[in-house]
Amino acid sequence: MSIINDRFMLKNETAVKLYEYAKDMPIIDYHCHLNPQMIASDYRFRNLADLLLGGDHYKWRQMRTYGVDEFYITGGASDYEKFQRFAEVVPFMIGNPIYHWTHLELKRYFDVDEALTPESAERIWNHCNALLASDGYTAKGLIERSNVKVLCTTDDPADDLRYHKEIKESGFCVKVLPTFRPDKVLNIDKETFLPYMQANGLKSFAEVRAFICEKVKFFHENGCRLSDHALDRMFYKTGDAEAVFNKAMRGEAITDDEAEIYKTDLLLLCAKCYTEAGWTMQLHIGALRNNNARMYRALGPDVGFDSINDGDVAEQLSALLNAMDEKEALPKTILYNLNPKDNYVLATMLGNFQAAPFKGKLQFGSGWWFNDQRDGMEAQLRALANLSLLPCFVGMLTDSRSFVSYPRHEYFRRILCNLLGTWVEDGEYPADFNYLEKIVKDVCFCNADSYFGFDA
Amino acid sequence: MSIINDRFMLKNETAVKLYEYAKDMPIIDYHCHLNPQMIASDYRFRNLADLLLGGDHYKWRQMRTYGVDEFYITGGASDYEKFQRFAEVVPFMIGNPIYHWTHLELKRYFDVDEALTPESAERIWNHCNALLASDGYTAKGLIERSNVKVLCTTDDPADDLRYHKEIKESGFCVKVLPTFRPDKVLNIDKETFLPYMQANGLKSFAEVRAFICEKVKFFHENGCRLSDHALDRMFYKTGDAEAVFNKAMRGEAITDDEAEIYKTDLLLLCAKCYTEAGWTMQLHIGALRNNNARMYRALGPDVGFDSINDGDVAEQLSALLNAMDEKEALPKTILYNLNPKDNYVLATMLGNFQAAPFKGKLQFGSGWWFNDQRDGMEAQLRALANLSLLPCFVGMLTDSRSFVSYPRHEYFRRILCNLLGTWVEDGEYPADFNYLEKIVKDVCFCNADSYFGFDA
Amino acid sequence: MSIINDRFMLKNETAVKLYEYAKDMPIIDYHCHLNPQMIASDYRFRNLADLLLGGDHYKWRQMRTYGVDEFYITGGASDYEKFQRFAEVVPFMIGNPIYHWTHLELKRYFDVDEALTPESAERIWNHCNALLASDGYTAKGLIERSNVKVLCTTDDPADDLRYHKEIKESGFCVKVLPTFRPDKVLNIDKETFLPYMQANGLKSFAEVRAFICEKVKFFHENGCRLSDHALDRMFYKTGDAEAVFNKAMRGEAITDDEAEIYKTDLLLLCAKCYTEAGWTMQLHIGALRNNNARMYRALGPDVGFDSINDGDVAEQLSALLNAMDEKEALPKTILYNLNPKDNYVLATMLGNFQAAPFKGKLQFGSGWWFNDQRDGMEAQLRALANLSLLPCFVGMLTDSRSFVSYPRHEYFRRILCNLLGTWVEDGEYPADFNYLEKIVKDVCFCNADSYFGFDA
Repeated sequence: MSIINDRFMLKNETAVKLYEYAKDMPIIDYHCHLNPQMIASDYRFRNLADLLLGGDHYKWRQMRTYGVDEFYITGGASDYEKFQRFAEVVPFMIGNPIYHWTHLELKRYFDVDEALTPESAERIWNHCNALLASDGYTAKGLIERSNVKVLCTTDDPADDLRYHKEIKESGFCVKVLPTFRPDKVLNIDKETFLPYMQANGLKSFAEVRAFICEKVKFFHENGCRLSDHALDRMFYKTGDAEAVFNKAMRGEAITDDEAEIYKTDLLLLCAKCYTEAGWTMQLHIGALRNNNARMYRALGPDVGFDSINDGDVAEQLSALLNAMDEKEALPKTILYNLNPKDNYVLATMLGNFQAAPFKGKLQFGSGWWFNDQRDGMEAQLRALANLSLLPCFVGMLTDSRSFVSYPRHEYFRRILCNLLGTWVEDGEYPADFNYLEKIVKDVCFCNADSYFGFDA
Repeated sequence: MSIINDRFMLKNETAVKLYEYAKDMPIIDYHCHLNPQMIASDYRFRNLADLLLGGDHYKWRQMRTYGVDEFYITGGASDYEKFQRFAEVVPFMIGNPIYHWTHLELKRYFDVDEALTPESAERIWNHCNALLASDGYTAKGLIERSNVKVLCTTDDPADDLRYHKEIKESGFCVKVLPTFRPDKVLNIDKETFLPYMQANGLKSFAEVRAFICEKVKFFHENGCRLSDHALDRMFYKTGDAEAVFNKAMRGEAITDDEAEIYKTDLLLLCAKCYTEAGWTMQLHIGALRNNNARMYRALGPDVGFDSINDGDVAEQLSALLNAMDEKEALPKTILYNLNPKDNYVLATMLGNFQAAPFKGKLQFGSGWWFNDQRDGMEAQLRALANLSLLPCFVGMLTDSRSFVSYPRHEYFRRILCNLLGTWVEDGEYPADFNYLEKIVKDVCFCNADSYFGFDA
Repeated sequence: MSIINDRFMLKNETAVKLYEYAKDMPIIDYHCHLNPQMIASDYRFRNLADLLLGGDHYKWRQMRTYGVDEFYITGGASDYEKFQRFAEVVPFMIGNPIYHWTHLELKRYFDVDEALTPESAERIWNHCNALLASDGYTAKGLIERSNVKVLCTTDDPADDLRYHKEIKESGFCVKVLPTFRPDKVLNIDKETFLPYMQANGLKSFAEVRAFICEKVKFFHENGCRLSDHALDRMFYKTGDAEAVFNKAMRGEAITDDEAEIYKTDLLLLCAKCYTEAGWTMQLHIGALRNNNARMYRALGPDVGFDSINDGDVAEQLSALLNAMDEKEALPKTILYNLNPKDNYVLATMLGNFQAAPFKGKLQFGSGWWFNDQRDGMEAQLRALANLSLLPCFVGMLTDSRSFVSYPRHEYFRRILCNLLGTWVEDGEYPADFNYLEKIVKDVCFCNADSYFGFDA
C-alpha cells in the first residue's frame, strides 16, 4: 500500500471525517512562481525529470547534501541520470517534506503506488513518461486536473503581462492572475537597481513614484489583487528618500540607513496604492539569499543556496504598519516569516491592526519555504489558533515553481484536519460538525475567495 | 456534556489521578491586576457582559480579529449587543485559550454546561444575569467561592493603599495584598515621568531614591511581599544616573543610553530594598506596547493593542543580576519573558544565581500573557523541567483584570498534571505517588506559600 | 521494575524493533572532555560520589537550585554527605535528563534497579562502592565496558599529548585521540591571552600563524582528526589582524571589533589547515559563560555558572563559511548552537555549502549542553530531518567530563529510534526495514566512522 492512502497524515477518526469536507474543495493558489509563458504555451514536459526536478531547488539541495555531484543536479548529465540520482536520495528523506511531496506527485498525477527507490526508479520513469506524452499532462492539463480555480503568479511591475492576457484570451478555465512584486524598484542597494531604472526610463524620484501608481493600475486591470515584497531584513526609517534616490542615481554608494529610508518611503507609497485598489499586501520577512558566492557566480539566484536570516523584527514592523495605518493606507496584509523564532511576534502583531469590516484583515501567512513542512505548518497553525483566530485564515499557497506542487494543498489540508481532529478527540473543542465543517471549508477555500475578492 | 468535564485537559489515567491532588488546593494568586477599589466596595456586576467582557482586552482582540465593529467592543452598543457579538465569535476560537477560559468561567461560576454560541447566548445571558443579582456574585463573593487564600494586586508606589486597608479592616477572609510596581519612577523616557515627579514632589535624585526606600517600607507594613517591573526591553548600563535625572528634570531630551543608565541605577536600588525586606522581585521582559497610535489616542493603554517584542536579553540580564548579586542585593526573583524564543535563555539564567538556603531562589515565571495557553504553558513547564527543577516552581498566577479568571489556575493545574502523568505513563518517571503528590501540591500551592512567606 | 528497562524511551513497537539495530553498535565519542591523564593512569574512583558527582556541574546546578548549601556541593563535606544530598534532590528531577542519566549510570554500570532516593541512597552507595573497588571499574575499565571504539578528548594546541601517547603505547583497545581546540590562541580579548603568548614564546603575528600550522601537523601525527572552537558570539570581520595583534601584545586595550578582526583572520587560517589535513571543524556557538562573578572568583570556570546567550548568528556565520569556501578552505564542519532559537538558522545554513563528494559535508550537531535532553534532541533531529537529511548525520557525542556518560549514547539512540518508529507507525514512512536498519546503524555509528576517517 502506498504511504499516500486515504488516511495519510490523518491520525484519528475525527480527522478522517473532517478531511471529507476538505478534499474536494477547489484550490486558490494565491502565491506561486509558475512561469506564465509556460502556461500560455501549454508547455509539454520532456520527461519525469523535467517535470519533477526542473527548477525545484528544494530537491537539488537534498541531492547536494547526499553528496551527489553537481553534474547530476544542474550539470550536463542526462535527464534519466539525474532522475536516478534523485531516486537514490529519496529513501533517505525520512522526515522530510520532499519525501511526501514526491510521493504525492507520483500518486496524484500518475497513480504510482510504490515508493521511489533506486530499484523502482526505472519502472516509475517509464510509466510516468508514457503518461506525460498523453493529453492532459501539459502545463494547462496538470493545472486543470488539480482542481485549481485561481492561481497568482509573481511578476515584475515592468512586465507587460502578455502571457496573462494570452491565457485569458485562450479561454483557459483557470484564472491565472499576476501579482505585483516591485522588489527591483525598492532594492536600491542591489546591483539590479540602476539597470532597472535605465531599462524603464526612470530618471527622477517623481517618475519612480508615478511608475508604481501606474503599474498598480495596469496590473489591477489585468486581474491582479495581490502584491508581494521580499524584506530580507525588517526596516522602518524615515528621511529624505528623494535625496537618497538622487545619490544612488549618481552612482554613489549609499549606506544601509539610506537604503532603508528609500525603501520605507516607497513601501508606504505602495501600501497606499494597494489600499486604494483593495489589494492584499504580502510581506516575506527574513530570507538570507545567495550565501554561496562561488555557486552564485556559476548558477545565479534561486538555485538552492538560500537560508534563514535572523535579526529583530518586532519594533520596525510595528512602526511600519502603524505608519500605514496612520495614513489610512494599511491594506489587507499577509505577514510571512522565514525564521520560526518570529512566529509569535507576527501572530501577535496581527492583533494590533485588525479592523472591521475585514475578517482577519491582517493574516499570519502559512509556513513559508523552509517552514512548509509538517512541523512548520503545525507550528504556524498552533500560533495562529493560540494568538489569533484560526478560522479566519486564508490558508495554503504553494510558493512553487513546479507544475505538480498542488498536492501541497492536500498536504496542508490533511495536517489542518488532523490538528482540528486532535483537539476534538482530546475534548478541547466539541464535536459540533456544523462549525467544524464551516471552519475546514473556510480555511481551505472560502476565506481566500472572499478575502482576496476573486469571486471564484 | 460540557467540554468542561472531569477529564478536561487530562489525557491519561495518571493525569486524572494526579489532578485529584490538585483540585482542592487553595489558590495563591500572587500577581493580578484586580482593582482593589472594586473589592473594597464589593462591586456588583451589572450583567454577564460587565463581568466577562469588561476590561478583558484578550476578548476584545478576538472580536476585532473577527471583524466586529469597535462600536460593539468598546463603543456605545448595549451590554447585551456586545455579549451577542462576543457569542458569535466564540465558536471560532478553536484552539484558543479564551474558548476554554470562557467555558470554565460559565461552568465554574454559573454551572453552564452548553457551549456559548449565537444560539445559546440569550439562554446563558438570562441564566447568568439572574445569578449575578443574587448574593455571592459580588467581587468579594466571586473571590471567596474561588478558594483563594491570598491575592496580590499591582500598585503604584504613590498609592495610599487605602482600599487594601479597608479590605483588611472589613474582615474579608482573603488576604488582598499590594504589589510594588514603580514603573513610573523608572520610566524616565516616557511622558508620564515629569508629571509623576511633580505630583509626588520629587525634585532631586536623592529624593527619588529616598522615595523608593520609604515606599517599600510603607508597602511592607501593608503586607506587600512582591514587586514588579515591566522591562519592555532588557537593559544594563552603568553611568551617572543623577546627571541623567537632572537633565530630564530640566525638560531636556535624553538618549536611550541615558535612560538605561538611570533605570539601571534605580533598579539596583530597588533590588537592594527588596532584598532587605525579604521580598520577591518580578521582571516582566519583552512587551511591545501601544502599537496602534490611532487606537491609543482613542482608547488609551491596555485595551488590546500590545504584542511581543524581540531583541537580545541574555548578556544584559546576566550583567544586571550579577551586579545585584555582587552587592548581596539580589532578592528572590521571578523572570517572565513574553517572547518564547527566550524560554531557554531565562530557564538557564536561573542556574547562574541559585543559592542556598532558598529553594528555587530564581524562578522562571509561568507562561506570561500571550504564552498563557496550553502550548505556551507546556513549553514553559518543559523548559523548566529540562533545565532547572520543576518541583521548586511557585506556579500559576492570573495576571488578570477579571474577577472570574481563577479557573485559569484550574487550567494550569490540569495541564501540569497531564504533563506529569504523561511522563509517568511513558515510563520516564516511576509511578511513585508519594513524590508525585508532593510535587503536585507544592507547585499548585505550597511552594508559593513558603517562597513568598504568606503563611496562608 | 527499573525505569531503565528494555522499552525505556521507546513508545511504539517499531521503535522497539529499530532499537535492536542500534543497541549493540559500538560508540564513537568524537567530542568529550575526559581528562587524558586519568585514562593514562587508569584512575580508580574513591567511591560513587567521586564517580557520579566529581566534576559534573550539571548535577551541581540541580543541587544549588534545590537550595543545597555549597558546602555539600563543592565544599568540605564528605563524599557520602554529598551523595546523600544529591539523592535528596534526584526524585525532584522529574522531566530532567539528569534523572535519566543518573539511573542509566546506576543500571548500566552497577545493575541497580531501584530509584535513587534518600531511602535507597545508602544501599546504592554500599553496593556501588564495592564494585568500584573491583577490577573493571577504573577509568579504562569503564570505557572498555561501554563498547567505545574511539573517543576524542579536547586539548590545547600547546599540549604535548604525552598522555595520548602513553595510552596508545599501553595497548589500550580504545583509540583515545586528541582534538585541537585553539581558543586561547584566538581569544585575544580574554585575560588568558598574554600569558599564553608568553608561555609559548609567541612574539609576532607570523609566529602565531606558524604555531597553528605546526601544531595542527603535530596533532595530526598523534591521531587528531577534529578541531573545536567556542564562539560565544558569532563574528565575521575583516581587517588588519596583525595590527590588532601588535596592539594587544603592547598591552593596549582592543575594541570588540578589533578582537573580531583578529579572530576572523586566525579562524580562516585554522580552516585552511584543517581542510588540508582532512579534519573536521567544530563550531560551538552561543554560550554565555561565568555569569556569576562571585562564584567565579571562588571556584573558577566550568563549575555550573554558564547559560545560553542570544544574538544574531545567520549573516556572520554565512559570511565566515563563504569566505572559507571562496579560498577552497572550508573543511568538513559541524555547527552546534546553544540557543535553540538558532536550530532552523543552522539547519538551513548547512545546505548553502554542501558539496560532493562528501555525504553531509556540513553537519548540524546533536543537541548541545542544555539541549542534550529528550526535547532538545528531538528538536534537533526534527530540524535536521525537515531541513536537511537526517540519515547523513554523524550522531551523538557526550561532551562530558564523566567516565560514565556513555549511556547518553543509549539515550540518544532510543530517542532516535522512537522518532523514526513514530513516523513509520504514523504512516509517514514505509515499514521498509532494509532502509531503516541502514539509517539507524549509520546515524549511530557508521556515518561518524567514515565521516571522520577513523576506520574504527
